[in-house]
Amino acid sequence: MSGPTRTYTRLSVEQRRTQLLAASIELFGRHRPEEISVDDVAAAAGVSRPLVYRYFPGGRQQLYEAAMRQSADELARCFIEPPEGAPSRRMSNVLDRYFAYVDQHDAAYSALLRGGSVVDTSRTNALVDDVRRAGTEQVLFHLAAPRPGPRLAMMVRSWIASVEAVSLTWLDEGKKPSSGELSSWLADHFTGLLLVTAASDPETATVAAKSLAQESPGSPAGRLARRVAPLAGHTAHLLPPGRAVPDGMLGR
Amino acid sequence: MSGPTRTYTRLSVEQRRTQLLAASIELFGRHRPEEISVDDVAAAAGVSRPLVYRYFPGGRQQLYEAAMRQSADELARCFIEPPEGAPSRRMSNVLDRYFAYVDQHDAAYSALLRGGSVVDTSRTNALVDDVRRAGTEQVLFHLAAPRPGPRLAMMVRSWIASVEAVSLTWLDEGKKPSSGELSSWLADHFTGLLLVTAASDPETATVAAKSLAQESPGSPAGRLARRVAPLAGHTAHLLPPGRAVPDGMLGR
Repeated sequence: MSGPTRTYTRLSVEQRRTQLLAASIELFGRHRPEEISVDDVAAAAGVSRPLVYRYFPGGRQQLYEAAMRQSADELARCFIEPPEGAPSRRMSNVLDRYFAYVDQHDAAYSALLRGGSVVDTSRTNALVDDVRRAGTEQVLFHLAAPRPGPRLAMMVRSWIASVEAVSLTWLDEGKKPSSGELSSWLADHFTGLLLVTAASDPETATVAAKSLAQESPGSPAGRLARRVAPLAGHTAHLLPPGRAVPDGMLGR
Repeated sequence: MSGPTRTYTRLSVEQRRTQLLAASIELFGRHRPEEISVDDVAAAAGVSRPLVYRYFPGGRQQLYEAAMRQSADELARCFIEPPEGAPSRRMSNVLDRYFAYVDQHDAAYSALLRGGSVVDTSRTNALVDDVRRAGTEQVLFHLAAPRPGPRLAMMVRSWIASVEAVSLTWLDEGKKPSSGELSSWLADHFTGLLLVTAASDPETATVAAKSLAQESPGSPAGRLARRVAPLAGHTAHLLPPGRAVPDGMLGR
């Protein structure tokens, strides 16, 4: 034991724990939990098996759960953004952080979202639900709608599902197109969904009006407005010619 | 054996199999697979345990997989729609069928989408992937884009993820609001997403233009256009006053 101890003393307890967790996240992201042994984690971290057990007496199961919990916590933190500036800019900042996490921790992200465990799907699902809840709360905070009605709540929930699906597809497709392109498209997606939902839900209409008032021509929503405008001609036939608002959002 | 046989001869082999599957779908939707025994399926179907084994020699595992496969097949069939009329109307028809399925088979839908099995998450995931693939193909068929680029493919995939998330949330919330309301909102969501994606992806812009040309004032997309128009005033400050298309989609 003195041998390994001599080698390991350079890391603090917290540093060692972080190192073992990082090795676990990497391994559990690429393999099913039952394929990974404590020896694998020890080898990946360059430490002895007893050292791993000293930090994680529950062995593989404890390592797996700790790795997934850490991934979930980091993902949830991506959604935290100061309530300043254009809402679509804040959304872009959140998405930039989210995709940076997905990019840097692709294996852990897949493991967390896809489950793929034979022993603890329900616990992994609970972690993913925590991330979704945290994300939903943050988005509603920025919309100044902490107690949303069912349609607005569903809107946010469905957008978060889109973000997850896009992230997993992005990983499957070899991370193409660029994360910046996806991030701005998903911010646009949110703006579009807000307007479309506002068209049939009065609460969302109020929230959307307040949110749009905080946008500027240079914000992501402002840029979207100018890019969508040329498409309006394709919808002119959908609005009656004598209508009071013939030049509205989908008309020309 | 003559006793049960006498009672059971009223059903054909196919009818009996269908009946056992229906009982299985119901039970596996409400309970984790390991909580359900072949005896439970037999009792729910009002038949003997040996009869269940005659149809499903693999017992519980085979029943579970057959139930999930049948649910997946039925869901995938919801997406099949003739290529006639306004695309947004076809989308509404698909969604009406999808929500009718979710409503009538809520337990099976949850079991399929959430996994929740301790023994076959990966097989259930593969079934769900089949449904998503079938749904994506049908949507792309109606968009006349059978070989989409990455952005258009991701758009459809992300919308299907929204449909799933909304369906699960709807079941959690006691099926409120009405399925008709959700169905038309999700059709609107698709139209909005198509336009927003068209703003930054040339292929989607072409597809959106062709799709919108097939819409009419009375189609769901036509109704959406008229409902969104009054919201355009909230975005006037995002377009420069001297712009060539000041009265475009997001302007007024």
